Amino acid sequence: MGVTRTSLGELGLRAKAASRLVAGAAGDTRDGALELAADLLEERSRNLLDANAADLSRAEGSGMLAAQIDRLRLSEQRVGAMAEGLRALRRLPEVVGEVVEGFQRPNGLHVERVRVPLGVVGIIYENRPNVTSDAAGLCIKSGNATMLRGSSSAIESNRAITSCLRDALSKAGLPADAVLLVEDTSHEAAIDFMRLDGVLDCLIPRGGHSLVSSVREHATVPFVIDGDGNCHVYVDAGADLDMALAILVNAKTQRPGVCNAAETLLVHRDVAAGFLPRARTALEGVQLLGDEGTRRILPEVGPATDEDFATEFLDMKLSVAVVDDLDAAIDHISRFSSGHSEAIVTNDLAAADRFCEEVDAAAVLVNASTRFVDGGELGLGAEIGISTQKLHARGPMGLRELTSVKYVVRGSGQVRT
Amino acid sequence: MGVTRTSLGELGLRAKAASRLVAGAAGDTRDGALELAADLLEERSRNLLDANAADLSRAEGSGMLAAQIDRLRLSEQRVGAMAEGLRALRRLPEVVGEVVEGFQRPNGLHVERVRVPLGVVGIIYENRPNVTSDAAGLCIKSGNATMLRGSSSAIESNRAITSCLRDALSKAGLPADAVLLVEDTSHEAAIDFMRLDGVLDCLIPRGGHSLVSSVREHATVPFVIDGDGNCHVYVDAGADLDMALAILVNAKTQRPGVCNAAETLLVHRDVAAGFLPRARTALEGVQLLGDEGTRRILPEVGPATDEDFATEFLDMKLSVAVVDDLDAAIDHISRFSSGHSEAIVTNDLAAADRFCEEVDAAAVLVNASTRFVDGGELGLGAEIGISTQKLHARGPMGLRELTSVKYVVRGSGQVRT
Repeated sequence: MGVTRTSLGELGLRAKAASRLVAGAAGDTRDGALELAADLLEERSRNLLDANAADLSRAEGSGMLAAQIDRLRLSEQRVGAMAEGLRALRRLPEVVGEVVEGFQRPNGLHVERVRVPLGVVGIIYENRPNVTSDAAGLCIKSGNATMLRGSSSAIESNRAITSCLRDALSKAGLPADAVLLVEDTSHEAAIDFMRLDGVLDCLIPRGGHSLVSSVREHATVPFVIDGDGNCHVYVDAGADLDMALAILVNAKTQRPGVCNAAETLLVHRDVAAGFLPRARTALEGVQLLGDEGTRRILPEVGPATDEDFATEFLDMKLSVAVVDDLDAAIDHISRFSSGHSEAIVTNDLAAADRFCEEVDAAAVLVNASTRFVDGGELGLGAEIGISTQKLHARGPMGLRELTSVKYVVRGSGQVRT
Repeated sequence: MGVTRTSLGELGLRAKAASRLVAGAAGDTRDGALELAADLLEERSRNLLDANAADLSRAEGSGMLAAQIDRLRLSEQRVGAMAEGLRALRRLPEVVGEVVEGFQRPNGLHVERVRVPLGVVGIIYENRPNVTSDAAGLCIKSGNATMLRGSSSAIESNRAITSCLRDALSKAGLPADAVLLVEDTSHEAAIDFMRLDGVLDCLIPRGGHSLVSSVREHATVPFVIDGDGNCHVYVDAGADLDMALAILVNAKTQRPGVCNAAETLLVHRDVAAGFLPRARTALEGVQLLGDEGTRRILPEVGPATDEDFATEFLDMKLSVAVVDDLDAAIDHISRFSSGHSEAIVTNDLAAADRFCEEVDAAAVLVNASTRFVDGGELGLGAEIGISTQKLHARGPMGLRELTSVKYVVRGSGQVRT
């Protein structure tokens, strides 16, 4: 524990020192490092796949679930996608140095708010090795240093990937320590990592409940929660039911394992009898769980408990409730929503406006699938997570969310009276 | 403890329910509540002064320091200033509903990012009763509910002030519970308050070191640190020394007890012999502590330790160091600064630019006093604190910093492919 703490502290100091140099580097230099890193990932893909094979063989011996093993697995194609991801970042516009606001005060002071990197960004994540490259790339692009604390199951893959990134930084004339892998993957080191005050300017946990609770409980550094998505689709009395069906099927089944997939269908009672049987047919392969109103129309559906309504299934499973009106829909959502993405399908303008105003979530959607709430789909270019908290960032977090602002005040000798 | 927790939880639910109604209320209604509250504070000033007298007599019996008693004291004039503060807030432009950004995606989705209230804002603060009125006013103006946890020494004053605010909310047709005073001022209740997950969308501690450390250690809700101001004035080789003297005197002595006052003077060695004796004369009444270079020029000055350089004196006391060059000044600042406000005095453009770029603080100033880093002086209209962290808000926090944004996405049936 003593040794862990020391070495993490030392890593932290190295990251901190590197962060100053990266923050001060020209955008061209940082872009150059991204291009070099993309090249190195491709050049060393054999190397990466060997490292990944070592992780995979340990994982297979450990009884890991097939879905988790799939997330861990790299292929030529996945390595190519990581490289392309870095090249895509390189092409995004620069965010550092943007003048967010500028004005002159009556006393002649010139005030600007200038976008600056956060400094050192910490990421705690699970076993997908592409997160290593994506997150480090976003940090380099936004002028930050990053400390990456991945899963022990991906340690060999992460070492191989970060060594490409570090070599690229060095070749570009930037400090390799702008990307640091925390190799101690013990639980104790994770807690220490969350408490690296004075080093981590922002911690982003990417993982499930227990990681997020652990961060809330133990972190002393500022953090942004990339939380659950218990997303609802509400089919209003004024909905075009064909449109509602298409949106529901897309939101639930296009990729059920992600946070912006729908988990609950709410249907206005006036259209429930017409809509629910069509929904059941269209959602073939999806297990439905319904409230009383639903089961009156679809008696073969099992009962949904409050716990079901509160659950992010991340699976081919959907809870369903019939609601009396828009108010009841909004009440249900405010009770069970995780504040991620909430959709209404309606042609009633007043209902759409009230839904948008009264539903408290990172994103509210009218007549569109919840699946659009994603950095790429909303035009951010890339995303490091989706915030379900309200401070700092809300919804998809891209490059701008990895920055802060600084007041720059220029005067000619003004003093305060 | 059980009872405390329950009652705080109940208060939280009331605040949460009220927050939805305040967030949805028109700006005119919230402005009306502010005007009514200002009127009530004035109408009931006798009442407020009586309550305050009870707090003062307890405080005087408890051996409280004179400066603290002064902060606790209300007068007709201070009550009038509180009322005027609320009226000034009323006149500020509306922040809720501002469309921060809006665009159309290639698939026809219309996307807007709309400014929305945070929800429930918690404030923990010390014994100045005017904070009760100022903070609640800022929260009402920005569409938030607020839970106020002031000091036990100001409890009677705070009760009297919040009852004016609550009555004004009711009269305006808004829920009184949008302003709630946490009357349990025990340490345990403070900890419970920091852990009101699902209720507090943002916690703002306004107080000293021990409060801030306690929040970092115990809080599980998102928070913004209103931290120390260990501010520097650096007099560069290229400075106009008359200007430097005026800025230094202003930054140190105009109001030494506040966070944007200067605590350390750094002087370039080329101008130290010319500047320091003038500074000593101009800073009559200020105790100087100097490094070796300083004491070679001002031998009568006591030695400054690293601890002195790290201290926010908040007093007529200044640490002084002679530095070899701009790099050494920036290094000193990066070592000791609390990241609040840092000033350079220079006529050298390259030095000014490098200082602004490389110094990592909420505000950097060229040829102006650090005292300008304040919500009022920077045109925010009002301030709820000054953030020394980089997430969410940095520098003076006004109405906008009490808001979040929400993505509003409007489509015509789009699904993701």
